[in-house]
Order: sequence, then C-alpha cells, then structure tokens
Amino acid sequence: MLVIMRDHASRDQVQHVVDMLSEAGAEAHLSEGEVKTIIGVIGDREIIYSLELEGLPGVEQVIRVLKPFKLVGRDFQPEDTVVKLGASSIGGGAFAVIAGPCSIESEEQMLATARAVKAAGATMLRGGAFKPRTSPYAFQGMGVEGLKLLRAAGDAVGLPVVTEVLDVRDAAVVAEHADILQVGARNMQNFMMLDELGTMRKPILLKRGLAATIEELLSAAEYVLKGGNRDVILCERGIRTFETYTRNTLDLAAVSALKSLTHLPVISDPSHATGRRDLIAPMAKASVAAGADGLMIEVHPDPERARCDGPQSLTPADFGTLMEQLVPRLAVEGKHLGIAS
Amino acid sequence: MLVIMRDHASRDQVQHVVDMLSEAGAEAHLSEGEVKTIIGVIGDREIIYSLELEGLPGVEQVIRVLKPFKLVGRDFQPEDTVVKLGASSIGGGAFAVIAGPCSIESEEQMLATARAVKAAGATMLRGGAFKPRTSPYAFQGMGVEGLKLLRAAGDAVGLPVVTEVLDVRDAAVVAEHADILQVGARNMQNFMMLDELGTMRKPILLKRGLAATIEELLSAAEYVLKGGNRDVILCERGIRTFETYTRNTLDLAAVSALKSLTHLPVISDPSHATGRRDLIAPMAKASVAAGADGLMIEVHPDPERARCDGPQSLTPADFGTLMEQLVPRLAVEGKHLGIAS
Amino acid sequence: MLVIMRDHASRDQVQHVVDMLSEAGAEAHLSEGEVKTIIGVIGDREIIYSLELEGLPGVEQVIRVLKPFKLVGRDFQPEDTVVKLGASSIGGGAFAVIAGPCSIESEEQMLATARAVKAAGATMLRGGAFKPRTSPYAFQGMGVEGLKLLRAAGDAVGLPVVTEVLDVRDAAVVAEHADILQVGARNMQNFMMLDELGTMRKPILLKRGLAATIEELLSAAEYVLKGGNRDVILCERGIRTFETYTRNTLDLAAVSALKSLTHLPVISDPSHATGRRDLIAPMAKASVAAGADGLMIEVHPDPERARCDGPQSLTPADFGTLMEQLVPRLAVEGKHLGIAS
Amino acid sequence: MLVIMRDHASRDQVQHVVDMLSEAGAEAHLSEGEVKTIIGVIGDREIIYSLELEGLPGVEQVIRVLKPFKLVGRDFQPEDTVVKLGASSIGGGAFAVIAGPCSIESEEQMLATARAVKAAGATMLRGGAFKPRTSPYAFQGMGVEGLKLLRAAGDAVGLPVVTEVLDVRDAAVVAEHADILQVGARNMQNFMMLDELGTMRKPILLKRGLAATIEELLSAAEYVLKGGNRDVILCERGIRTFETYTRNTLDLAAVSALKSLTHLPVISDPSHATGRRDLIAPMAKASVAAGADGLMIEVHPDPERARCDGPQSLTPADFGTLMEQLVPRLAVEGKHLGIAS
Repeated sequence: MLVIMRDHASRDQVQHVVDMLSEAGAEAHLSEGEVKTIIGVIGDREIIYSLELEGLPGVEQVIRVLKPFKLVGRDFQPEDTVVKLGASSIGGGAFAVIAGPCSIESEEQMLATARAVKAAGATMLRGGAFKPRTSPYAFQGMGVEGLKLLRAAGDAVGLPVVTEVLDVRDAAVVAEHADILQVGARNMQNFMMLDELGTMRKPILLKRGLAATIEELLSAAEYVLKGGNRDVILCERGIRTFETYTRNTLDLAAVSALKSLTHLPVISDPSHATGRRDLIAPMAKASVAAGADGLMIEVHPDPERARCDGPQSLTPADFGTLMEQLVPRLAVEGKHLGIAS
Repeated sequence: MLVIMRDHASRDQVQHVVDMLSEAGAEAHLSEGEVKTIIGVIGDREIIYSLELEGLPGVEQVIRVLKPFKLVGRDFQPEDTVVKLGASSIGGGAFAVIAGPCSIESEEQMLATARAVKAAGATMLRGGAFKPRTSPYAFQGMGVEGLKLLRAAGDAVGLPVVTEVLDVRDAAVVAEHADILQVGARNMQNFMMLDELGTMRKPILLKRGLAATIEELLSAAEYVLKGGNRDVILCERGIRTFETYTRNTLDLAAVSALKSLTHLPVISDPSHATGRRDLIAPMAKASVAAGADGLMIEVHPDPERARCDGPQSLTPADFGTLMEQLVPRLAVEGKHLGIAS
Repeated sequence: MLVIMRDHASRDQVQHVVDMLSEAGAEAHLSEGEVKTIIGVIGDREIIYSLELEGLPGVEQVIRVLKPFKLVGRDFQPEDTVVKLGASSIGGGAFAVIAGPCSIESEEQMLATARAVKAAGATMLRGGAFKPRTSPYAFQGMGVEGLKLLRAAGDAVGLPVVTEVLDVRDAAVVAEHADILQVGARNMQNFMMLDELGTMRKPILLKRGLAATIEELLSAAEYVLKGGNRDVILCERGIRTFETYTRNTLDLAAVSALKSLTHLPVISDPSHATGRRDLIAPMAKASVAAGADGLMIEVHPDPERARCDGPQSLTPADFGTLMEQLVPRLAVEGKHLGIAS
Repeated sequence: MLVIMRDHASRDQVQHVVDMLSEAGAEAHLSEGEVKTIIGVIGDREIIYSLELEGLPGVEQVIRVLKPFKLVGRDFQPEDTVVKLGASSIGGGAFAVIAGPCSIESEEQMLATARAVKAAGATMLRGGAFKPRTSPYAFQGMGVEGLKLLRAAGDAVGLPVVTEVLDVRDAAVVAEHADILQVGARNMQNFMMLDELGTMRKPILLKRGLAATIEELLSAAEYVLKGGNRDVILCERGIRTFETYTRNTLDLAAVSALKSLTHLPVISDPSHATGRRDLIAPMAKASVAAGADGLMIEVHPDPERARCDGPQSLTPADFGTLMEQLVPRLAVEGKHLGIAS
C-alpha cells in the first residue's frame, strides 16, 4: 500500500500516519520528495484492507498495491483448475458448452431441448427454475417442480445440469437437484449467499455483475474459495454501458485478462451479453479466440413461444450449426470439447 | 405495446403476430405504411410483460409503452406517501436526516454518535450491523450484537433506527431491532428479499443499484408494494460511470424525476455517492434543491479510526455545521425537518 | 510519479528504470519491500508526462501523482478568476445566467428571445449559428448570417453574446461577432482548436465532453491557458451513462469538485444534461446549491416550432418563473446575478 | 416515426400533432387505444429528422424508426465495399493489417518498423505525425516532417500509409503524403472535418468515439459519404466504461453488428482498446472471429523508448508471432490477407 501525502503535508501529519500504521502492525517506509512525501506500507492483506487511512489529515490518496484476493490468483495456484462432473469437464483445455432454455417450462420442452443440445455436442444442460425478473408481473419460473424436470432431462441424456440459486434459502434444495449452482449477475455481490455456497460441495458458476469490475468478480470468487469450495467457474455475461444496440456490452478483454489473473475456468455468455440472436454465433466464436474455457448458450425448441428471453434463444438447428462452426475454431486454439465420447 | 415490423415484412408474418396476440388475450391494431407495418397492442400489464415477441419472424423491435410498475406510480396514487415513525416522519414536506456511522463498532461509539446527531437535528439514526464488503478480508460488521447497540442508542436519544438487511434470513431479527429496514444497492434486485420484505410491516429503505435505471428502481419498489408493504423510501446513492474522481456519480436528476414519477419519498446519500468528505455538504444542499425528501449522512465521532468508510464520514462538528446550512435551504424549498420538537 | 515494480522484480529491472529516469533528468527514490519495490520519481511536469515507463520489463504500474495541468489549478492561482464583459461578469460571487435558443432561426425569434430573457434577468445571451448534429440530414444552423442576428439582438438589449465555434477555421469570424466563444462537448479534446483559441483575446466557454473526466476537462482548459488566454469558463453539461431516462447524467459533484480544483468559473447546463423541460428548473436550483457560478439555459419563444432542442427549451414565461426562484437561492449561497443594474 | 401520446391525451392535442405533420409534408396514421393514441408517421428521412415533436402538449415519446443514415446502410448497398490501394485492399474477404508506431519519431524508427511489419505480413503502414494528447505537456508529434518520413518508409517497403488528420486545416497536406486519412476517436463528431473529408478523394479511416453509439458512428460515416467520398473504413477501438483494468472496453459485438448494418469495411484496434500489450494478441484473434475486416496494431522497434503508447506497443518479434497466429484463423473465417504477394 502507498500513502501519498498532500503537497507540503506537515511533519506531524506524516508522523501521525506512521504511528497509526505501526499501531496496526504494519511497516512504514518513507520516501520524501521536495513537494510530496510518500509512505510505502508493508503488511499482510488483512491488515492492509482493514486500514482506512484516506481520511487522515494531510493524506491525499491511498493506493492498494496488494490485490484484495489471494486464493483465486495465479500466484497462489499457477496451474489451471479443472472442474469435473461425470464425463464432462471444464478448464485446462477442456471446453464446456452449457446449453438449454432460459426458463424451464414443461417436461416436453426440457426433454426436447436436452436431446437436441446433447446431439449437437453440448457438454452440460442449463435451465432456470427460479427467474430473476425486473418486473414483478413477469413469469418467475416453475420453482422446485422445474428443478425436477431439469434433473430428469439431464439424466435422460447423460449431461450434468446447471441452474441458478436465486435465494440463499433455496441453496440446499437446488444442490439436491443440480450439479452446478449458478450465481446470477444480480447476486454477484450477495456476500451472504457466497459465504453459504463456500460451505457446499458443488461447483459454483459465478456470473459477473452488470457493473462489476474484474477485480470485484475475483473478490466475489474469493469469498467462495475462502469458505472451502475450490470449484468456481467465472462467467463474463456483458457489462452495462451507454450502448443500447446490444442488451449489454460483452467484455471479451475481461475473459483474456481473467485467464491470466486466475486459475479458475472462465466462460462467456453471448446470449445474455448481446440479447440478440444474430450476434450469438459471432460472439461465441470470438469468445473461443479470446481464450474462454466455455460458453453458455440459450437454446429453446420454439423460441417464439419461450416464456423468457425468446429473442436471444437459438433454435436447435441454429445451435447445431454453431457447434459445427466451433469445432475447427477450438482445434486452432488447442482445445477440445470437455466431454468423454 | 408497439410491435414494429421489419421493412417489407410479409403479410403472413404480420398475421402471425396478430394471431399470437389474440391467443394471449390482447388486442392488435394495425398501422400499415408503405415500408413498415406497426402493430399497436392493447392489453393489461401482466399480459404485455409476459409476451416475448421480439424473436418472431419479421419483427424488428418491440416497444413497451406501459410502465413495468403500477402501485408505485403517481397515476395510481397522486398524493405523496408519508412514512411515520414515532415523532419522525418523511415525505409530504417532512424532510428526514438519517445520520450515523457506516458500521456499528461499540456501545460508546454508537451512543456518542447518537447524541451528537440528535443534538444537531438529525431525525433518524443509522448504523450498519451487517456490512457488505468487496473483499472477504475486510471487516464484516458486528451482527446481532450491533443491532442491539443501535437499538439502545436510538432509544437513549429518542430516534428511530435504520439498518441494512444483508441476508434475507436475517430479515426477522433485523425487524425485531430496527424501525426501518434498508436494502443496499447490491441487493436492489434481490427479488426474493424484496418479496420477503413486502410481507413485513416495517418501512423499507431501498437504495438504487450501482447500474440500475430509474425504471428498474421503481420496479424493485413495486415488488415490495405488491407484497402489501406500502412504506417504501427510495434512495439515490450514485451510479457507476467512467468518472473515478468521485466513488460514484450522484444522479440528482434521478431524484427530481422520481419525485414526479412516484408518490414514494426519495432521499439522497451523498456520502456513498461521492466517497469524499469535502463533497458531502455541497451535494447535500444540491439534493435539497433537487427536491429530495431526506438525506443519509455518515457521521463518526472519530473518522480516522472508523472501521469502514472513514474517508467519507463527517465529524459531529462538521455535521452540526451542515445541519445549520440546511435549515435556510429547506425553508426556501418549503420543507421542514421531519421531527416533532 | 510512482513506479510500482512487479512482485520480485529483478535488481536489473529496477536499475534499468532508475537509469532511464536519470537519463531523462528525473530523480529516483527507491523504497524496497520484501515483495515489492516502489520507485518514487521527482521531476518536472513536462518530463513526467513525456516518460512512458509502463512497458518496461518488471514494471507493474505507473502512478502519476502530479496533475497533468498547472495553470488552471488553485495551487497556481488561489483566488477566483472573474471574467468580465461590459456590465456582465462571472466568477467570484457573480452568477451568470446565459439564456437563448439552441439555434438562431430568424431576426424576430432572436429579438423576441433577447428581450424576454433580458427582462427576466439573464446576464448573457446565447444562440447557435453553427450546429453540431448527429445526422447530416438535420438542420445545421444559419452560419454567419446567424452570427449577425445574434450580435444585433445582443446589442439591442445590451447583453454580451455567446456562441459556438464548430470549426477552427471559423474562429476568427465568430470572434468578430461574439463576446464569448463556446467550445462544444464534441470538441473538448479538439486540441488544435484549443491551441487556436489560446491565442485569441476573447473568453472561452469550454463544455465538458460526454465521456471526459474532470481531469481531462482541466487538461483541455490548460491548453487554452498555456496559449496565453486566461479567461476560460468551464461548463458541466452531463456525461453519458447507462441511464436513458435523461439525455445525459448531470454530474453536479463535478461542479463542486472543479470549484475546489480550479480558480476558473464553473457553470452548469441543465438543458443539455437532462434533455427534458421538466427537469431544468430543479437541476438549475441544484446547480446553484452545488456551487456553480452560472447556468446555461435554452429558451425559445415558441418551443414547439424550434428547429432544434424544442423538447428541452423553456418558454419565456417558464424562464421568468425560474429566474424568480433562483433569486432567493442565490442569496442563500451568498451570490448575486453578475450584471450591473 | 411513431408519436406516442400521453394517457388520455385530448383530441385537440392529437389533432395539433397531426396538423404539424401535414404542414411539414408528412403523413399521419392514427391508432387509437382506450388509454393511448399512437400516431404513425410516414415521410422522408430529411423531414423526419427535422421535426421536433417531443415538446408538443400531450406528446409522451417520439420514436424514430427510420435510421438517421442511408448511404452507409446495407439496404442502400447490399454488397461489401472494397477499398483498394495499390496492391493492398480491405473488405469483401480481404483482411487488412495496419501496423506501425503510435508516433513517428525518426527516419530510422520508421524504416525499421516498416521493414519489420512488411516482413511479418502487414498490409498497410501506420504512424502518427500529429498526436492528440490529453496534456499539453506531452509530446505532440513531428508534424509535416513526420508525414514525409512516413511516406518515405511506406514507399521503401511498398505499403500504403495511414495517418491521422488532427486539424481540418491540415487535411490537404496530410492527403498529399498519406494514402488513407484517419479521423481519431476524439474527432468522430467533428462534423466540419467530416464534411471536408467527404469532398476528398482518399479513403477515410473513421474511429469510433469513446462514448459514441453504433448508430452515431454510422451517422458520422454518412457525413463523409453524403459529401461524395464512398471509401470509408470504420474502426472499433474501445468505448469508455466503468472498467479500469483495460484502458477502454473493446466492443466486439459492435464489429459484428456493424458488419450486418453497413457495407463498409470494419476493423478493430486492440492496442488502443486495451492499452495492454498482453491483451493485444487475444483481442486481435477475437476480432477476426467476430468478423472484422482488419486490424490496427501498434508496433515499435523499441517500445521502452517509444515517445507515446509504449506500454501497448508490440515489438517486431511479438508482431511476427501474432501474424503467424492470425493466418490459420483467417483461413477458418474464409478470409485472406489483403495484399498481392
């Protein structure tokens, strides 16, 4: 940590900062210029992040050089984390394609989708049972009944299933039926839920918040790892910007940046990021090229009648075409579909 | 709702949309231009928001003209909602000043703060027992012990107390000790928590999310009102933009806009919005001028040693000065401090 | 400037940075921790800003502590700059109200507006002769003919006139007719134009770019002052964010921040910032409370038939009401209208 | 265009809008619901964009369905525009790699770079003679002297040269020396410059502004085409968002979207978008996958000593490696380097 003092800060002000630091158990190193004094601080992460020096008299700026996370970093674990679920895996060269409808609507819909995506090469099945909706008047999902349909469809085709935990009180029941527990963008900083999921023994798929920085996403993952759960998959799903042509702005540089900062698998969700069916295929390909370890794609047997996110859902036929396009692109990147054939 | 068809959409495509609308119980009105056909849709809010027509063949754009909220709107209730808590009130001319520390740290700290802010004219007392922190290594709050200290301090000086519900599972215990339950910015779209708080009989203070639009904030409030709880206070606390000089960007036009869109009280939190002590007083004054019904201000007896948000906390002396400055400004706006003297 | 080396950067890498610094004429001060070495750099602004050390081996981050501006800073000139134009002035307690139509359309329109705003208390007259329009198919302004109408209207009522220089090649002709030359938001970083205006002897009204930081706005002003022109007025006119309810997001904290960072007058433009007539009055009042030195307000005798920005123009009657509301608010802030009566 | 009236707007208000439309030469089609009346407007682009109906009594919202551009659209010209310059071309399957230093610094530097990038497979040479710099104290470029060095280096290796026009007054001299005239992000809405470049007979490389929407970029290009110059190349170079890990946020969905909206070639500039050397290669590959027609890459023989943008410049060796990686990826996308071998 660096404490930058204001121009011509007084000797007393500098000493005061130094005293507070040593009181807290940190070391201070002075660097005195003609105009500015800078104090370098050495100490452990916990101390550095518990100190609040910005308000001290004479202090202009405090810069934290240590990252607010540790367990998720490449420094802590250089090799890729690989998350395995039966015949499917993700990370370390294994590429996941997680496909399925936005919301679970019926047994027929789930089974038809599961068969179609499995046939096209998907490695995991997704579907929403609890849906976060901006308006309380929109369809909110089938709940536990939906979880059962998802589980049954996954079992029928032999794919692990992913679904969102919308309420921390539902974590246990979701874990009963699903293989991977998803934390949605709106809950990325629901720290109590992250704490709870940290105690569980199921992989977590953590989506980036609409206004979350890369560092905040990593700090959110740190909550889960700190609780003891090492299997976290990160997901870039678009950030909110001024551009309205797309629903959100897919930040693919974040995918590449995350791949070098963390050992955790990083996937991309072009469906939610763009909100437009015509942009899913190009953004899926671009995600592969950017180094993603997987994709999350909305597929619906009849998008026109989907109860949620129809405009951004692919038909099974479109999805099949996309999977065919991905194969040579994965080969170029030295990756393979993460599923035992 | 308006459905705008693509240029030269086929007659069949148009008919298909019309059929789906009548199937769902809505009425379609065609307006056919040379190049474009536009379909006006009449139906109730639930139907309009459950239809997903964007993906239909030939459809270019769907525009929802009806707002996604109803109960919070001025159309539904033209007169201001006034929230009352003992001698304190907010709305309809009564201006609330909710002051206190970011986090509750000790009995002495809470009592000293409570006495100081009461003496200066605050109308409610705040303090955080459960703290949302980006890093899992930062101080997370005193929990239930903190709630008791807050309650005791409020009782000692005769002010109602406000504190955040961070976890839906804590809603009941927080409601036991606090008069107003705060939903933080990160939980603004934690819909399950909003549903839960809708069933409670304590006022809710709902903070705008960092990337939430005005319409999304109103829709979040609609969740609470739809559950039966009519006492919701909205809070503008800064949105996330590219500007980094301030922690967030205080959107005061949103305060004015909300005042005309909704009957609910709207307050402003310049402490969190700016993250800088020197900007709190000018932004507090500007909030009054923009039509806010109240302010939320962080005050700490010793900001240097605050365990959270020190740099943006006022000292009791600064807070006293600010309160003196607010009095003539409230008078100009035709408002009064919402506390019986 | 601080150069933060990567964890465990080599001795050679550190030495290399130190060598490059001394080669450039700057001094290096080492601060070596167990994990990190930090190099404090002392040197003048020109050197600091010409060095590009970010790419050197072993360098993690470079932090510039010196601001990229000097002449505009309060350090350089603590007392307020006051810009004077005949009987009108701005800065140092004198509050400017610059009113008039978005675009100059006819002699009648300009004269009617000039008389109306003068009668209501405006201190300067504005009007656009060269209009920046997103679409090449929109009305582009009357050009030099418009400048003459503006000048005549200003002379008729005895108010100085403000208008935009859209093209650097027009700077001279605009200066011939106008008292203050405006640089629009889209030209804030048109550095060649700033250089040109720096050589002129007319005050410059510099609007903040849609995506410009506070620091970039000050740096743009520095270009003008560096050229020898000390009369620059800064204008906050909204930044571009994800919120679409308002045209832009008025950043009033920037007004307060600028007032403490610079001695230059700072005004606010609620018309362009919000794009909504109903929000102009509350944001004008909030601007006064935030410490602004003036306002820029669009007024049109017949907003319905305005060729530009009708939806955000006030009628003369609305403007009169607003001026009456401003008077007591200016008094509370210890300011007065900047016009000799 | 659609005019949406407020709920229960009066018959007179509706009639007033209809009258203004017919007065302007447009046709109105009424669609009257129980609560809302909607007016469909048919007329040509010029009329639609010159009307300002938002402020009329009873009008809630005006939605422009016609795009603000025409000549740049796929509707106007379905087939790809191909820009040709000697042996190099871009568009229609031909992929351009425009490489070179941020700023031209010396004959040796330009020649060394030109030879290196030509050897590695670049199809065009870039270099900045006039540099837009935030601070007036930073290096501003070599000016006309630099143009000559760029020209000489391009001629020496047989590559067309691209450079920025920073000042409209320099357009002619730049056109004398360069093959493609670049409009920088800060000048994207410098409409007078766009008008000037529209009259020239050299291709224009138009970079997206930091806060410009896709539609605004296309409208800016429309200015050039409307002037008679059909050879415009669009360039995505990152937009400004809240994320600070990268300098800007590369919006690759914009590249894909532009490719379907316009016939003009679209390239990507990962150097400026990310500001980080380590992210250039992955974002270059992702750009290819997203459908870009080319790349703009900063290359410097000695990035450490670059006078500008060193941290984001590749060495010739890194650039060579990147070019090798691009070849198989272009093949997968069915594209080829746009240079005659």
